[in-house]
Amino acid sequence: MPVTLQLSAPYLIFLGDVPSAVYAKTALGIVQWAPEKCIAQHRFPECEIDTGLADMSIAEATAAGAKSLLIGSAPVGGAIQVNWIPSLLEAIAAGLDIVSGLHTKLEDYPELREAAERHNVRLVDVRVPPQNLPIGSGEKRSGKRLLAVGTDCSVGKKYTTLAISRALEARGVNCDFRATGQTGIMIAGSGMPIDAVVCDFTAGAAESLSPNNDPDHWDIVEGQGSLFTPAYAGVSLGLLHGSQPDAIVVCHDPLREHIVGCPNHPVPSVQTCIDTNLLLARLTNPAVRCVGVSVNTSAVAPEDRRGLLDSIAAQTGLPAVDSIIDGVDKIIDQLLQTQLPKQGELA
Amino acid sequence: MPVTLQLSAPYLIFLGDVPSAVYAKTALGIVQWAPEKCIAQHRFPECEIDTGLADMSIAEATAAGAKSLLIGSAPVGGAIQVNWIPSLLEAIAAGLDIVSGLHTKLEDYPELREAAERHNVRLVDVRVPPQNLPIGSGEKRSGKRLLAVGTDCSVGKKYTTLAISRALEARGVNCDFRATGQTGIMIAGSGMPIDAVVCDFTAGAAESLSPNNDPDHWDIVEGQGSLFTPAYAGVSLGLLHGSQPDAIVVCHDPLREHIVGCPNHPVPSVQTCIDTNLLLARLTNPAVRCVGVSVNTSAVAPEDRRGLLDSIAAQTGLPAVDSIIDGVDKIIDQLLQTQLPKQGELA
Repeated sequence: MPVTLQLSAPYLIFLGDVPSAVYAKTALGIVQWAPEKCIAQHRFPECEIDTGLADMSIAEATAAGAKSLLIGSAPVGGAIQVNWIPSLLEAIAAGLDIVSGLHTKLEDYPELREAAERHNVRLVDVRVPPQNLPIGSGEKRSGKRLLAVGTDCSVGKKYTTLAISRALEARGVNCDFRATGQTGIMIAGSGMPIDAVVCDFTAGAAESLSPNNDPDHWDIVEGQGSLFTPAYAGVSLGLLHGSQPDAIVVCHDPLREHIVGCPNHPVPSVQTCIDTNLLLARLTNPAVRCVGVSVNTSAVAPEDRRGLLDSIAAQTGLPAVDSIIDGVDKIIDQLLQTQLPKQGELA
Repeated sequence: MPVTLQLSAPYLIFLGDVPSAVYAKTALGIVQWAPEKCIAQHRFPECEIDTGLADMSIAEATAAGAKSLLIGSAPVGGAIQVNWIPSLLEAIAAGLDIVSGLHTKLEDYPELREAAERHNVRLVDVRVPPQNLPIGSGEKRSGKRLLAVGTDCSVGKKYTTLAISRALEARGVNCDFRATGQTGIMIAGSGMPIDAVVCDFTAGAAESLSPNNDPDHWDIVEGQGSLFTPAYAGVSLGLLHGSQPDAIVVCHDPLREHIVGCPNHPVPSVQTCIDTNLLLARLTNPAVRCVGVSVNTSAVAPEDRRGLLDSIAAQTGLPAVDSIIDGVDKIIDQLLQTQLPKQGELA
């Protein structure tokens, strides 16, 4: 039994009375990245947001094979809304697990807890780590791993790793996306909410997320935080050590002037980010390489975009792409072409 | 109200039926380092371990001013023993807090919990972090800080920082020992069990532990883990960033061949440990310096001891001492003589 969160798909995506797309980002992200896990959407009559999935009642979705009702709406305050409770109770009575990434915990609602016990279904809060996490060992595991790292938080690590895993699949490479945040976990159907783990277990949790695998298998691990954020660098280091990546990809927002929430902390250069991550990653994988830079150019003037990417590519000697605009093919070419050092070359 | 654990001293040190000094390390350490916080010991008739404190009944200790019964015995398995419960209930009824660093939680014993509620005393598990920890901000705080770091876990960080804080006090320097582990917290009477904090809050917890202070005040922060342990490096990095040390001291065991629990991970050189810690510490304090090396030479042949310390001192250009054998005066000389860079020199 793996020591990670495991969700039961397919999902009935619950939108309820979500008033705008801003609050339906979870639902829209899951439908975008994991349509094969989504069987239908469930909306209140007044809801005008549409993920494009079929509309179904809870009974219809259950009959169609749904295993979980997944809350895809995130209202201001992050709490479960009182007018959702009857639908959640109906889903529980129909035998569906309830999956939530909201701040308030499903377990904190006695009526949901009692109903779930009675109907033998699970209340899965994807912000709550699994029990019995191991301490990290630092032992080398079989298979290969790529980890996204960042010059800051919120620079596209989830998007980049999802794009890389989908593109690898399209090339026939044996791989898995390994999720470390709540939306990623819902997309993957499993994962580890790494920043909610007690810090003594962070590296061990990351080790559990990408266990031994086939020699040619790639785990594509969603990054969290950044070594350059004063608040979260410890999370990023535990994830880096536990993931023992063979390859890292640096994600970067070129227009960000300082670390989010820290006006006195400038964003490091891409090269500094590469160097520091490689230095520290060598503790658990001396063969680690950087295989590319994923740059969010959405706010860069169109006439400056190509020059900016070319400049980063020239400075680092690595492919630099906007993963959304350009795709990640150049990074994947670099990843698959990179000659790993021979055994004798490792320190 | 500070966001750290706060214990109520003075303590009645509870030894119970502890069979040997090995299991009384907590009691002996507290009596060694904080005799002013210890009012008496409480032993069962068969107990032959003696901390040197006066023997008192719970009623006598309460009358003499004790505020907490502190469990100073750590049996195999780390559980509260059934035959201790009547004494703990008597102490609760007398109005004493109960303080424990054992693995099993005081709160998990319903009879203790109910009695504590009835008598309005606290059950303080020093392995449980305080509530409402903040996220780290990375903002510079007033006052000065020294942090012990290590080439591995269990290399003398607690002893070294306690010795430094006592020696600074003896020189009239305004300072506080800031505890990050359970025994340290009992010695200091306050602190932060840093490795039990959820990893998103590690740096914030460390910031709370050494808040703004007088410009000439030194916080001497007990280190945890090591940047070179695959399991715990994230804890050490969060503590390093949150402590924003002006000075670090490296603790080292020269005979250790590999990281504890990780046979394939060699212990780094002292210089590598200094360099890596300084590189990463600069994120929150560009003026950080290393002021000395504390070497555990207890297992080094006496004729090799001086040469070993001289060699480390020559390699690093810093004082290298065995804190237990030599004391920490040379490190303190370096700390107080170190000319901090002028404002304009900071990046």
